[in-house]
Amino acid sequence: MALKHKKEENFSEWYTEVIQKAELAEHSAVSGCIVIRPRAYAIWETVQREVDLQFKKMGIKNAYFPLLIPEKLLKKEAEHFEGFTPEVAWVTHTGSSKLPERLAIRPTSEVIMYPSYKKWIRSWRDLPLRINQWNNVLRWEFKHATPLLRSREFLWNEGHCVYSNAKDVLKDRDKVLDIYIDVLEKYMALPGVLGRKTDKEKFAGAVATYTIEHLLPDGKAIQGPDYHDDGQSFSKAFDITFLDKKEKKQYVYQSTFAITTRELGVMVATHSDNKGVIIPPRVAQTQVVIVPIYTNKEKSKVLAVAKKLASKLDKSHLDDRDDYSPGWKFNDWELKGVPLRIEIGPRDIAKKQVVLVRRDTGAKKFVSMSTVKNEVRKLLDAIHNNLLNKAKQFLRDHTHVASTMKEFKEFAKKGGLIQTGWCGSVDCEEKLKDEFGTKATNMPYEHGKVGKCMCGKAGKFVVNWAKSY
Amino acid sequence: MALKHKKEENFSEWYTEVIQKAELAEHSAVSGCIVIRPRAYAIWETVQREVDLQFKKMGIKNAYFPLLIPEKLLKKEAEHFEGFTPEVAWVTHTGSSKLPERLAIRPTSEVIMYPSYKKWIRSWRDLPLRINQWNNVLRWEFKHATPLLRSREFLWNEGHCVYSNAKDVLKDRDKVLDIYIDVLEKYMALPGVLGRKTDKEKFAGAVATYTIEHLLPDGKAIQGPDYHDDGQSFSKAFDITFLDKKEKKQYVYQSTFAITTRELGVMVATHSDNKGVIIPPRVAQTQVVIVPIYTNKEKSKVLAVAKKLASKLDKSHLDDRDDYSPGWKFNDWELKGVPLRIEIGPRDIAKKQVVLVRRDTGAKKFVSMSTVKNEVRKLLDAIHNNLLNKAKQFLRDHTHVASTMKEFKEFAKKGGLIQTGWCGSVDCEEKLKDEFGTKATNMPYEHGKVGKCMCGKAGKFVVNWAKSY
Repeated sequence: MALKHKKEENFSEWYTEVIQKAELAEHSAVSGCIVIRPRAYAIWETVQREVDLQFKKMGIKNAYFPLLIPEKLLKKEAEHFEGFTPEVAWVTHTGSSKLPERLAIRPTSEVIMYPSYKKWIRSWRDLPLRINQWNNVLRWEFKHATPLLRSREFLWNEGHCVYSNAKDVLKDRDKVLDIYIDVLEKYMALPGVLGRKTDKEKFAGAVATYTIEHLLPDGKAIQGPDYHDDGQSFSKAFDITFLDKKEKKQYVYQSTFAITTRELGVMVATHSDNKGVIIPPRVAQTQVVIVPIYTNKEKSKVLAVAKKLASKLDKSHLDDRDDYSPGWKFNDWELKGVPLRIEIGPRDIAKKQVVLVRRDTGAKKFVSMSTVKNEVRKLLDAIHNNLLNKAKQFLRDHTHVASTMKEFKEFAKKGGLIQTGWCGSVDCEEKLKDEFGTKATNMPYEHGKVGKCMCGKAGKFVVNWAKSY
Repeated sequence: MALKHKKEENFSEWYTEVIQKAELAEHSAVSGCIVIRPRAYAIWETVQREVDLQFKKMGIKNAYFPLLIPEKLLKKEAEHFEGFTPEVAWVTHTGSSKLPERLAIRPTSEVIMYPSYKKWIRSWRDLPLRINQWNNVLRWEFKHATPLLRSREFLWNEGHCVYSNAKDVLKDRDKVLDIYIDVLEKYMALPGVLGRKTDKEKFAGAVATYTIEHLLPDGKAIQGPDYHDDGQSFSKAFDITFLDKKEKKQYVYQSTFAITTRELGVMVATHSDNKGVIIPPRVAQTQVVIVPIYTNKEKSKVLAVAKKLASKLDKSHLDDRDDYSPGWKFNDWELKGVPLRIEIGPRDIAKKQVVLVRRDTGAKKFVSMSTVKNEVRKLLDAIHNNLLNKAKQFLRDHTHVASTMKEFKEFAKKGGLIQTGWCGSVDCEEKLKDEFGTKATNMPYEHGKVGKCMCGKAGKFVVNWAKSY
C-alpha cells in the first residue's frame, strides 16, 4: 500500500502513483482520458457549488449548449480556429452513415453559443447577458498526459458574458477572478499568481487574457483559472450587435472565463506527501476518521463510545472494520488524506479523552471528551491555514528576481518562477523559451520595481517566466 | 408574441412554439441537438439537486467517466452493442490524424465504467458499490427530433450500482424509483405509470427494465425515468467478480437507472396552455412576478410599495420596466409561465391590498397587504396541487381498459393508454404494433383484474399499450 516513489525524488512518478493509490483518478481505456473517482469528484462538487453560488449572486445564469460543433462554425473566427483545430476530435460518422459535414467535439463553446447570442440580443436592454455552462470539453493534445493536470477531456465552467461596453468586461473580470481566488484559497488552500498573459500566450481570439498561475512542487508552473477579455473579436465574426440608447447599432463586447478539474491535480500535487494525499479540510468529504483501538473484550464498550463520538462530529467516519488492525487503518486514511484522525481506546475512555492526530503535521494532541467537538473545529481550521501558508511560502521561496541573463540561467536550472522586467518584444520572449525552455506565465499584478529586460533594454512590464506544464 | 398554434388543435406545433417563445430551449446549428436556455436549465438544476440529495442519502456517490468509448469495448456485450450502434456518433480523427480505432461518443456509459469496476471490486467488502454520473449522452436517432422530448444529445443521471446478490438489486430498485416518483410529483407536478417493460421493450442487455411512463396531451405515451436490473449480463461480459465470505468467486449483480432532461419537455407539454408555459411553483426560479400599475404622478409611490413587497417575498421579481405597459407584462409573464402574479396600483395601496392572479386558473383574489406572504405561500401550494391533480385526472381519463379487439381498435384511434390482459407472447405484441401502431409502454404495478389477451388466450400480465414518442 505504501508509496514507492518519493515526492522530492521523482515528483512525476510520485504524483501519478499517489493520485491512483488514493483512489482519486485512474487511467481509462481511452488514452489521455481519465476516470474521476468519487473521492476526487466530491471535491469538484464542492468547488463547483461554491463558485456557482457566487456566480449566481453576480447574476450569471447557467445554460447548456450542444457538445458538437459544425466545422464551418469553428472556422468563423480565424485565430480561434487556428488555436484549436490541431487538438479537435472529429465526428465523421453516425451509425453507419457518413455525415455531410464533420462535427467537432467542443474544445470550448464560443462558436456554438454565439449564434444564439446573435438571436437573443437586440437592444441595450438585453445587456449585460451573463451565461455559464458546467460541462466537459475535449482537447486532443499530443503532449504527455498526466491525470487531472493534463487530461484530454476535462470538466470546467465556461462563462460567456456580453456587455455594451469595454469597461464592464473589466469590472466583471475583477469580480470573477476574485471568486476564483476566494474558492481556491478558502476551500482548496491554493495560492496563485494573478496577472495578465503576454499577447503570445493569450487565448486564441482574445484581446487580453488574465490568469491565476500555480507553481508545482517540481518547480514547474501550471495555469489555473483564466478570464479572457474578448473585446469585439467574436461579435464581429458572429455579427452580434445591439441597438444602443440612441438606436445606433453597435457590436457587443464579450468575456469568457473558466476553472477546471485541473485544480484537483494542483491541489493534490501541492499539499500531499510521501504518506499519501492531504485533502484540505473544507473540501474533504470525510474530515475526521475515528479509529477505535481495542481487544476483543473491550470491543463493545469502545465501539459504543466511538459511535457516539461519530454522531456528534460532522463529516466524520467511524472505521469499525473488523479485519484490519489500527495501524493498517492509520496508513490507509493517511494515504487517502483525511485531515484529522481520532484514536480512541479503553485507556482514553477511562481518562475521558481522545487522541487527535493531524494529517498535515502528524502532531498528536490529547483532548478531553467534553471539548472534542470544539477542538476538532479549531484543528481543522489550523490545518487549512497551515496548508495554505505552506503553499504561499513555497511560492515566495521559489520566485526569483533576475536582473541579468546569468542570473536567469541559474534560476532556470533551479526551477520556480523567474521574475524580470520585459521590454515587450516577442523576440525576447522567444529567445528565453529557446534557450531555457521557460515561457511567460503571466505579468503579475503585484511586483516590485520594473527591472531591465533580459535584452538589456528598459523594462516596460514585469513578467514571470517558468518551465510549464 | 402570442402563440400561433393551439394546444388542442395542433399539439406538436404548439409544443415547439411554446418551448421556444417561452425561452426554454431552441434549435442549434447541429440537427437534433438543442440549446437548453437558462429558464429551462434552472429547472433541471432543481431536479438534479433534489434527486442527488436523495441519492446521496442512499449512499450513492458521484463520479465522472470518459465521454469516449473504444469500439472494441462497446462490442463486449453483444445485445448492448446491437441496441446502441445504429445511433452512435463515431470519432475517427483527432487534429489531422486518423485514429487507429474508432471512438464512440457515449450513448450510455456501462462499457466504459465496468472495466474500472472490475479493478475496484475484489471481495464482498467492496459491495454494494453505488456510483452515479450526471453527464451528457448522445444518441443519433433518425426519428424526427422534438426539443427536449427527443433530442439527440441530452443530460441525465446514470446510476450504475453493483451488488453481491439479485435481491439487493430489487431493494434498491424500489428506493430509486421512489426517489424519481417523489421528485416528479413534488417538484414537477408530474404523475406517471410505474411498471415493468416487456422483454421486447426492455433495455439492451438488461434482465428486466422498470419505468415510469407519461402520457402527453396528444394521447401519446413517452417513457420517463427507468431502472434496469442488469442481472449478471455485464458482469459476465466484463468479468466482474468478487470473493464471497466463503472465499468463493462469484459474478456480481448490477443495476442502471436514469432520469433525463426529457422530463422538462414532459412538464411543459403537460401543464402549459395557449397563453404559454406554466411552470410548477417548486421548480420556478421566479414564483411571483409583481407588476406595478401607475400613471407618471403615482409612479414613485407605487414602486416604493412594490419594492418593499418584493423584498418580503422569496423568489419574487418586480417588473419595473418603464417601456412596457402592464398588459404587455401580463402577457409576457404568462407566456414564460411564472405561477403567480401580483398587481398593485394606487387604489390597491389606498385599500392596503394587492391583487393575486393565478397562472393556472386565471383566478383573481384581493388580498390584504398584511396577509400577502401567507396567501402567496398557500396559493403556490394550491397551484402545485392543481397541476398535479389535473395531470393525474388526465391520465385516468385517458386510460381505457379494452377487452376485445374491437374495443382496442376504437381506443387506438382515440389515443391514450389502452390496458389489456396479455398472454406474454411477442407475436401478440408485434401484431398490435403492426395493426394499430401501439407498443407496450409497460406492465403497470397497479391494475384491476387481469383480462384476456387480445389473441383470446388467458392473460398472464396486464399491459398498457399506446402510440409512443
